[in-house]
Amino acid sequence: MKFCSHCGSRVALVIPAGDNRLRHVCTACNTIHYQNPRMVVGTLPVWENRVMLCRRAIEPRYGYWTLPAGFLENGESAADGALRETMEEACARVALIAPYTMVSVPAIDQLHLLFRAELLDLDFAPGSESLDVQLFGETDIPWDELAFRSVSLTLRTYFEERRTGQFGVHHFSLDALPRN
Amino acid sequence: MKFCSHCGSRVALVIPAGDNRLRHVCTACNTIHYQNPRMVVGTLPVWENRVMLCRRAIEPRYGYWTLPAGFLENGESAADGALRETMEEACARVALIAPYTMVSVPAIDQLHLLFRAELLDLDFAPGSESLDVQLFGETDIPWDELAFRSVSLTLRTYFEERRTGQFGVHHFSLDALPRN
Repeated sequence: MKFCSHCGSRVALVIPAGDNRLRHVCTACNTIHYQNPRMVVGTLPVWENRVMLCRRAIEPRYGYWTLPAGFLENGESAADGALRETMEEACARVALIAPYTMVSVPAIDQLHLLFRAELLDLDFAPGSESLDVQLFGETDIPWDELAFRSVSLTLRTYFEERRTGQFGVHHFSLDALPRN
Repeated sequence: MKFCSHCGSRVALVIPAGDNRLRHVCTACNTIHYQNPRMVVGTLPVWENRVMLCRRAIEPRYGYWTLPAGFLENGESAADGALRETMEEACARVALIAPYTMVSVPAIDQLHLLFRAELLDLDFAPGSESLDVQLFGETDIPWDELAFRSVSLTLRTYFEERRTGQFGVHHFSLDALPRN
C-alpha cells in the first residue's frame, strides 16, 4: 500500500497514538488503513463413505486437489459463503452439519474454516475454477496431490475421527507444521 | 474507496472478467481491490461459576459490558489473537479450552469468534480500552447493558449449556435476530 484509498495522497508506516503496531496512515487526511486476515470458507462434502474433492483449474496449486472453498465475501455469513463456494466450485448442493476445522495460516494472513457437510445428490460437476470433481474413499485420497495443508489436515482429522463416530471441532495454526 | 492504494489513480466499480460481483478496480493499473469481512476474536473467561466481562472505554458502545475481544491482526493465529485481546483489555491470563461461538454479522462485514477459556488467576485489571473488569455469576449479568449481540448470544448459550455440562461449538448469523 502506497496511496490513501480515500484521498489518493501518499501513506506512511506509522504507529498511531494508542496503538502498538505499524499501520499505513495517510499523510494528508490521517486515515488509518488497517489490514486484517481474510477468511477462506468451504465444506467437506460427504456421500456415504466418500468425500468430494475438486481439482483446481486456477493458481495457486493448479491441478491439485482441494475441498471446495474460497474467500468469504462482504455481506455474507460464514455458512452462506461455504454453501456458495461449494456450488461455484463443484455445482454441488450440500447441507451443512457443523463447523469442523478452523486453520489459521498466519504466514499468509488467512484463516480457513471448513464445515462438515452432507452431499444431497450426485448431480455435481466442475465449476469454472475446477478441472474435475470426484468422490474419494479414504484409501483413494490423492494425498501427494492435495493443494493445501489445511485440506490434508482436515481430511486426516476426518478419517481418524470417523473410526470413532465422534466428530469434534478443531482449531490449528499452521506455523510449525511441515508442508502437507 | 476512491483511489488505488498501489498507484494513486481513481478506482471504478466494475465486475471483473470471470467474477460476478462489483469490485473496486483501478482505472490505470487494473489492480482489483477485494474487500472481505474482518474477524473479531476473543474469549469467554471463566473462574469457578463466574464469567469475566469488560466495560468498554471506547466507542462503539462506550460504557457497555463485553467479552474481551478485538480485530484479528495480520500474522496472528485466531488463538493467539484471542489471548492477546484478553491480555490487552483485561490484563488477564487465560488458557483456551475450545472454540465456542462463531457469529457472522454480515450487515457490518464481521465474523466474531469466541473461545471458552479458563481464567488462570484473579490478577486482572482494566486495560486501556476498558473502564472496569469484573466477574459475574449468571444472575448478576448486566443483560441490558451488554455491548453486542454476539456477546449476549454467547453468554445465553453458555449458561444454558452449563446446566447440562456439555458444551458444543455453535455458529450463528445475526441477520434476522433482534438487537440483544
